[in-house]
Amino acid sequence: MTRRVITLTTDFGLKDAFVGIMKGVILKINPEAEIVDLTHEIGPQDVKQAAFILCNAYHYFPHQTIHIVVVDPGVGSKRRPILAKNKDYFFIAPDNGVLGLIYQKKKTSVYHITNTKYFLPNVSQTFQGRDIFAPVAAYLSLDIPPEQMGIEITDYERGKWPFPKIKDHVLLGEIIYIDHFGNLITNIHKDVFKKFVKDSKFLITIKDIDLKDISPYYLAVPYGEILAIWGSSEYLEICQSMGSAKMALNVKVGETIRIKLSEKLND
Amino acid sequence: MTRRVITLTTDFGLKDAFVGIMKGVILKINPEAEIVDLTHEIGPQDVKQAAFILCNAYHYFPHQTIHIVVVDPGVGSKRRPILAKNKDYFFIAPDNGVLGLIYQKKKTSVYHITNTKYFLPNVSQTFQGRDIFAPVAAYLSLDIPPEQMGIEITDYERGKWPFPKIKDHVLLGEIIYIDHFGNLITNIHKDVFKKFVKDSKFLITIKDIDLKDISPYYLAVPYGEILAIWGSSEYLEICQSMGSAKMALNVKVGETIRIKLSEKLND
Amino acid sequence: MTRRVITLTTDFGLKDAFVGIMKGVILKINPEAEIVDLTHEIGPQDVKQAAFILCNAYHYFPHQTIHIVVVDPGVGSKRRPILAKNKDYFFIAPDNGVLGLIYQKKKTSVYHITNTKYFLPNVSQTFQGRDIFAPVAAYLSLDIPPEQMGIEITDYERGKWPFPKIKDHVLLGEIIYIDHFGNLITNIHKDVFKKFVKDSKFLITIKDIDLKDISPYYLAVPYGEILAIWGSSEYLEICQSMGSAKMALNVKVGETIRIKLSEKLND
Repeated sequence: MTRRVITLTTDFGLKDAFVGIMKGVILKINPEAEIVDLTHEIGPQDVKQAAFILCNAYHYFPHQTIHIVVVDPGVGSKRRPILAKNKDYFFIAPDNGVLGLIYQKKKTSVYHITNTKYFLPNVSQTFQGRDIFAPVAAYLSLDIPPEQMGIEITDYERGKWPFPKIKDHVLLGEIIYIDHFGNLITNIHKDVFKKFVKDSKFLITIKDIDLKDISPYYLAVPYGEILAIWGSSEYLEICQSMGSAKMALNVKVGETIRIKLSEKLND
Repeated sequence: MTRRVITLTTDFGLKDAFVGIMKGVILKINPEAEIVDLTHEIGPQDVKQAAFILCNAYHYFPHQTIHIVVVDPGVGSKRRPILAKNKDYFFIAPDNGVLGLIYQKKKTSVYHITNTKYFLPNVSQTFQGRDIFAPVAAYLSLDIPPEQMGIEITDYERGKWPFPKIKDHVLLGEIIYIDHFGNLITNIHKDVFKKFVKDSKFLITIKDIDLKDISPYYLAVPYGEILAIWGSSEYLEICQSMGSAKMALNVKVGETIRIKLSEKLND
Repeated sequence: MTRRVITLTTDFGLKDAFVGIMKGVILKINPEAEIVDLTHEIGPQDVKQAAFILCNAYHYFPHQTIHIVVVDPGVGSKRRPILAKNKDYFFIAPDNGVLGLIYQKKKTSVYHITNTKYFLPNVSQTFQGRDIFAPVAAYLSLDIPPEQMGIEITDYERGKWPFPKIKDHVLLGEIIYIDHFGNLITNIHKDVFKKFVKDSKFLITIKDIDLKDISPYYLAVPYGEILAIWGSSEYLEICQSMGSAKMALNVKVGETIRIKLSEKLND
């Protein structure tokens, strides 16, 4: 038996035993599996949040890791359980777009999981994380090939993702995630920013705050000041030094952020 | 050494290092133990909640799993630490009724844990999860037999559990647990319901809401509507589609739920 | 490969995938590492809280355990990443005083971690838990010696800790931590208390509450009453039986606690 890593990303929270039960199911099938929580505090049914978190985390794990995602408003309905694999990783999730960003990264094969032989004997309508996703992941970790678990499909759900756009010479992005510290993570990746800004001076605007540069680290500005920084996944982040930008600026996910070039500053 | 699973169910929360310390104690004795959190967010001293969660989770784990429960208002007093075993599982807990539902499921032997050889050297009055429960579980996972840890007893605390009852042809139950999503879990098991309802039509009433059927899955009703569904442990649940029934109905644990048969609907 | 324990203590919370990602990084380098969460709910940037929690927990783990602490307001600035070792344990942390209480316990060697060979290829300015601390711990768990990771230093940050003091024959302490149950943990260790009190009668005062003795266990006083007790780390704690002393007394960290000897009670 191999010591394969299986990660869990859900909106289950930690109050109930849902997560613990999934781990029990996995260990009953593969006692050598190594299970890691990615997070269980995805907002209830927030498929986009789960997609973003998974996409920035999955590649830090050992190759052949199996990532389970259970953020599944359609549990019990006709939405399909799927298994996706790219060159180095496996993913098991409902077919609701939660793997959308994964599909964009690398060539991916997607299977509709249909072989009930790898499910628990009684599949409930409310907890398929336990009855389908966990046991399928456990059998996959025992090297049962995906082909035995279902049939390859191409009409899987790609999901929608809010990419930044350029309008009237302004790069328009938005806040797509707010972390535990109240840092505001935008959808503007360093590559997109650099391509737009090149060597110009620029002005970053969010709400009534203007920022003229990107700080090298949090403490590079005085306590309490708002700063922009490159986050750990290379997205532009708006932060407060030793504080919460979320609270300081009263911002929610979806808030607009604007990047203007300096020669356009007086527009 | 065997890779035995040990689960933890406590009201310790995750803010302090209590849970981490228990894991350290276990791994110091049995480095091969595999420790799984069931939950640490049992309401402070809520023995009933812990009993319910454990009872619906323990059997999903590999046989020979050792389930530790530390919800222990009487820590340091004369309440006894106990070890229970049935055909397939072990349980280590305070003797305060938290294993009451386990005793009802299968024939169980119960031991009063008395052999201080398997405790940490200094037993505190406030953290016996660390000083007694964790080390005893670790030694048990190394195949020390229960008989060496204490003496079998029969006067253990069975606890009390609110079972549904029939009064004036109405099945009366109550909300016994509210999960992370705000779903209201009742104490009415599918078997009890079916025996009562047989092939009749029925009406489920909670607060001022009447429900005439049980939905096959959450999205089977429009967004925001209240529905009844069979939960993952086969108890009747009251839910809100894409929402929290707890918030929508302003319900707490203990709230009454009524099932009337259709021929009685006009009573 | 050895199954070494690595613990994590951070202020990351569990909402984001920060913790999961650190575990992925570790397992990619040492698939046999056993990772245990001490806590991730240290108050944001609360270096003292982390120091206190670590100091009361680290010694319950197997010898050779590697404790990682990432409470790091200065991430990305010139503060140094360090590796400390005493006779039985290793510690990896930012050099900001978070290991101050560890240095006081045992003779400790401290290294400034400089060898980028043991870092991830791209070190970010915001998440060195992922890019430096996690991989260094993983390589350490593979028995790479500390000497290869950096250079020994002696000018490391010792931090400041609020020890109790005696003034006008009164032992003055303070609340240094409040746990999940609302128990108020003081900085008065049993040894300090005993040395001060000897065989005298005493009076413990916090806010307008006077306590004349130290209870043997929580339920030794009636429900709702305030009591003093020796906590699990042998610090004096102020608690409410079956309740939260924090809420009952409306106390915050830093609140003063006074111990007077009985012959001084009328002062």
